[in-house]
Amino acid sequence: MPIPQPVLYPPFNIVRLSHMELNVTDLDWARQFYVDTFGLQVTFEDSNAIYLRAMEERGHHCLILQKSDSPRVNVLGFKLYDEPDLEKAAKWFEEQGLPVSWEERPFMGKILRTRDPMGIPLEFFVRMDLLKPIHQKYKLYHGVRPLRIDHFNMFSPDVDASAAFYAQLGFRVTEYTADEETDRNWAVWMHRKGGVHDIAFTNGTGPRLHHFAFWVANPLHIIDLLDVMSTTGYVECIERGPGRHGISNAFFLYIRDRDGHRTEIYSSDYQTVDPDHEPIRWDLKDPQRQTLWGAPAPRSWFEEGSLFDSVDPRPSTLDAQPIVAP
Amino acid sequence: MPIPQPVLYPPFNIVRLSHMELNVTDLDWARQFYVDTFGLQVTFEDSNAIYLRAMEERGHHCLILQKSDSPRVNVLGFKLYDEPDLEKAAKWFEEQGLPVSWEERPFMGKILRTRDPMGIPLEFFVRMDLLKPIHQKYKLYHGVRPLRIDHFNMFSPDVDASAAFYAQLGFRVTEYTADEETDRNWAVWMHRKGGVHDIAFTNGTGPRLHHFAFWVANPLHIIDLLDVMSTTGYVECIERGPGRHGISNAFFLYIRDRDGHRTEIYSSDYQTVDPDHEPIRWDLKDPQRQTLWGAPAPRSWFEEGSLFDSVDPRPSTLDAQPIVAP
Amino acid sequence: MPIPQPVLYPPFNIVRLSHMELNVTDLDWARQFYVDTFGLQVTFEDSNAIYLRAMEERGHHCLILQKSDSPRVNVLGFKLYDEPDLEKAAKWFEEQGLPVSWEERPFMGKILRTRDPMGIPLEFFVRMDLLKPIHQKYKLYHGVRPLRIDHFNMFSPDVDASAAFYAQLGFRVTEYTADEETDRNWAVWMHRKGGVHDIAFTNGTGPRLHHFAFWVANPLHIIDLLDVMSTTGYVECIERGPGRHGISNAFFLYIRDRDGHRTEIYSSDYQTVDPDHEPIRWDLKDPQRQTLWGAPAPRSWFEEGSLFDSVDPRPSTLDAQPIVAP
Amino acid sequence: MPIPQPVLYPPFNIVRLSHMELNVTDLDWARQFYVDTFGLQVTFEDSNAIYLRAMEERGHHCLILQKSDSPRVNVLGFKLYDEPDLEKAAKWFEEQGLPVSWEERPFMGKILRTRDPMGIPLEFFVRMDLLKPIHQKYKLYHGVRPLRIDHFNMFSPDVDASAAFYAQLGFRVTEYTADEETDRNWAVWMHRKGGVHDIAFTNGTGPRLHHFAFWVANPLHIIDLLDVMSTTGYVECIERGPGRHGISNAFFLYIRDRDGHRTEIYSSDYQTVDPDHEPIRWDLKDPQRQTLWGAPAPRSWFEEGSLFDSVDPRPSTLDAQPIVAP
Repeated sequence: MPIPQPVLYPPFNIVRLSHMELNVTDLDWARQFYVDTFGLQVTFEDSNAIYLRAMEERGHHCLILQKSDSPRVNVLGFKLYDEPDLEKAAKWFEEQGLPVSWEERPFMGKILRTRDPMGIPLEFFVRMDLLKPIHQKYKLYHGVRPLRIDHFNMFSPDVDASAAFYAQLGFRVTEYTADEETDRNWAVWMHRKGGVHDIAFTNGTGPRLHHFAFWVANPLHIIDLLDVMSTTGYVECIERGPGRHGISNAFFLYIRDRDGHRTEIYSSDYQTVDPDHEPIRWDLKDPQRQTLWGAPAPRSWFEEGSLFDSVDPRPSTLDAQPIVAP
Repeated sequence: MPIPQPVLYPPFNIVRLSHMELNVTDLDWARQFYVDTFGLQVTFEDSNAIYLRAMEERGHHCLILQKSDSPRVNVLGFKLYDEPDLEKAAKWFEEQGLPVSWEERPFMGKILRTRDPMGIPLEFFVRMDLLKPIHQKYKLYHGVRPLRIDHFNMFSPDVDASAAFYAQLGFRVTEYTADEETDRNWAVWMHRKGGVHDIAFTNGTGPRLHHFAFWVANPLHIIDLLDVMSTTGYVECIERGPGRHGISNAFFLYIRDRDGHRTEIYSSDYQTVDPDHEPIRWDLKDPQRQTLWGAPAPRSWFEEGSLFDSVDPRPSTLDAQPIVAP
Repeated sequence: MPIPQPVLYPPFNIVRLSHMELNVTDLDWARQFYVDTFGLQVTFEDSNAIYLRAMEERGHHCLILQKSDSPRVNVLGFKLYDEPDLEKAAKWFEEQGLPVSWEERPFMGKILRTRDPMGIPLEFFVRMDLLKPIHQKYKLYHGVRPLRIDHFNMFSPDVDASAAFYAQLGFRVTEYTADEETDRNWAVWMHRKGGVHDIAFTNGTGPRLHHFAFWVANPLHIIDLLDVMSTTGYVECIERGPGRHGISNAFFLYIRDRDGHRTEIYSSDYQTVDPDHEPIRWDLKDPQRQTLWGAPAPRSWFEEGSLFDSVDPRPSTLDAQPIVAP
Repeated sequence: MPIPQPVLYPPFNIVRLSHMELNVTDLDWARQFYVDTFGLQVTFEDSNAIYLRAMEERGHHCLILQKSDSPRVNVLGFKLYDEPDLEKAAKWFEEQGLPVSWEERPFMGKILRTRDPMGIPLEFFVRMDLLKPIHQKYKLYHGVRPLRIDHFNMFSPDVDASAAFYAQLGFRVTEYTADEETDRNWAVWMHRKGGVHDIAFTNGTGPRLHHFAFWVANPLHIIDLLDVMSTTGYVECIERGPGRHGISNAFFLYIRDRDGHRTEIYSSDYQTVDPDHEPIRWDLKDPQRQTLWGAPAPRSWFEEGSLFDSVDPRPSTLDAQPIVAP
């Protein structure tokens, strides 16, 4: 199945992925993990939630940790280009028969809530509170020195359907994994902001969030995080890496919090702003697409993910042998 | 004087800076410098010209070295988003009373030639020949491991006028240096592609090219280049750095070829895709805006630049004391 | 069993490990591996052997690749401090009833050949031909940028016996792995030159060489090597890593040549020149001693090694479950 | 004048440089500088003094900050190999007609105080209190992540005399700067511990301490320190660098505290344990010996240094034009 062609003039203009809200069962532990160890900056907190930003972000938050009994991903947020894009988006989602509602969100004002066809909860906005730059307050840098949120990666039970949906919104495929035997695509990476991806979909029981990712300047910051985590009681939270992805060419590490939510630390993909940038095809049988250097990922990495709020995942329509194949 | 407001819907869509053509007086020496030492890849060469690309670029070339008796910058190239943008651009430049012509260029097809109001020669195109990716052919990496062309920096005799012109084309200011005493802007950094800049203008006799820049992944590659240049006969070509810019926050090095053309090696600025990204203001009296760590730049860096083809530079309209002030 | 106490005044003065001779079955392939890919410098070669040095070494060679039908380690070489040390060494080995002979070796002059009690072939010398420095010829650096040979690591069937023997020669223990259940030491790291080790012994069928190691300045050089190896046909030669050792605190990678000889690339242990430097004890049950970050080593790493010339390895005297225990 | 030949069997065995005591006029400021900013660890403090160690050091301290009205260097400390070396040292210094006394020092027990012929105050000891390792307590690392004290560098009014004196004690020359016109040596680097130097002498009014140095693993830690210092009020304390030395090949940075005491941060020289390691000669006219990349050092770096306690410096016996020549 061919990957979807880029849509040059989408119905509304999505600038980039922006933020997400995560349910965590122990807010104190989560603060130690995401703030003290990982290195995000707190921009607001009360007894129920912590709002965080990374070091070069000006928007108020990229990650909301929400206290809850059930670990879930409540919503994925995307920034729109201009005020009229909000109404255009609402209209478009309604036309697709998808649920649309308007909400007021702290630090963001009016936002549009909806879901994609698989049920992934989405929110769109134009303006978020802007904070003063801190990217040159070097004394604040610690942990892995996260610079900005980079992407969301989801399990989808029908990757081709997910890719087709987001292609309509102007997301362009940069790399993909084709399964020759089934003539289906196993995974796709799609972007709006000019890197390898804002979002990716991988075959599997879904929708579930596989991981969210932060950009760091340098592989050495990832080594620093590994050294700190492994000597302060977080060695069990290290899941996979460090390594180089074949796909995206980024240097990576995957870690997981106590609720199983997975974060990727991601360094140096490449620029993809050209609308005629040609996607790179990988074969499902090529093990180097996942780890250029050949080391296998653990079983948990292939199988486990975070549930989205109020959506039951369903099995993939592809016959998967996750350990052998991905 | 306030910096120009971002234009959200410009008359045509410029994706990014793309390439430039440079006259060099000794093509063999230039090949040793830009290919063997610096690390660009040759995509075409004959006895008169060498076409080069950096490691993650798919387009045929980002730099053309043209043999000539007089060192000049022949043209700065920009990529447009879609075919209709070419005609829109032609129409717009004509309406401004600026010269417009169509040419056929090797590896690019039809391009639009024009000049900005200061006389800087520009060319616009939609399609360039696409080459196979080499960013994972790691055996090819050498020198400073240049990944992509990042920006052009020009001396302008009237920075505010230059900024106003390019703002109309959708270039957005990310940082600027204000001169409180004259209520003028001393320098502006403007982008299309989502980084700190595609183009920048600094006060000085102009138009002249101050430098063009390549993006590298890591400060250590810059250290590698310094080690190689200083032990293979190029120590005189090292002009300034390494250091951290206050403006842009990038780690930098400036080198110059035998004809005086200046290249910046540039690592890690930050993402600016949001249309409401707020520009950072620097005061002309703050020495850290140039080098965060405080070391001064040499006089040559403030005063010398490359001539553009067929344009005589004129003095700045600002009373400048370049060594004291910039 | 306690580790041996440091001997402050050994019978003769060993400065450091120096070099080794390796039998390889395909000299052309070995040249591509150790020279073109790994980055060692050829100092002599003919149709039967290649002599190599690393970038900061002044001695003629640290590694000799010898063409042969059977892959073996022919000898491990150590440098003595002064001429009289050679005679003192000969006398001492004779007193232990170990075989002693004198040979002339190219680029080294007179050397002393002997074996340790397990049968490991050793050679001692005072002077090797000195070559001009190349550590500032930065254009020569490539591959992993190896700076110097760092250590030998051997399987021993009786680690305590091996440690006791080398302790008499002034090797001092820096770290060790104790097996509480058997009151035996599972592994020891011993040095002469002021780092974590010149030699190490690990429990297993032996004597066999587990690996030899080269020092590099920086983890990023290891990442570079991984990128090059995995994109030029050597992905199968990557065995383990990259990672941080608990023991030694070094950043590491293990690779293997076509004959199974294993090289470690090793970066940044620590200074141990003080004679009262206290050894660090690790428990055999602590998985972080091997990889601080927790990732397990593959089975091959625990079980496979290179045979020494003319010595049949014998099983360990410890009841080992190598995969579970080490 | 030829450099002194290495003395293979010195009258007593010095292991390495060990520590120093520095008078500072503002202990609070000094704590902010050396602890909070630079990254040393406090091992003891009271209202008059702060004892510090670097991250991989096991000895109780490498730097003592002593509150005082007059900024001075009180003493340079060296570790001896074994108890008898203390008596041998005392005897030898007495034989040279140099002052000898015994003292009790906190955390060190009995130490030997003396001076070299220029008047530099020295102390020798065998045992210092040993502390638990912290090199794998990665959460403690900050600032420039100093690993260990590396060397002392002194202005000497007669470099050849200083070199000849320390050569008798077994210090071996690794690199030196010769002044062809005067047939004198301008500077020498001498070691005991197997690196480029424990001590160095440079021509100038002396004795004065030019700087003391700490070893760091990586140039990026130096960049981190520069970023932190330049954004927390210490930009004036950055004196020279970053850069690569020709001599020693180390990546360096020089910073100064409020009293003018100068610290070098030093990364990656090379191993020199071989007694026949050949010294490298540099010509005084070669500017790359100081900075391989060609950038000049500021005048302060050539002229300013710290006074030693109770010694008046005297002018050099060489006709120096420090800015032009060094």
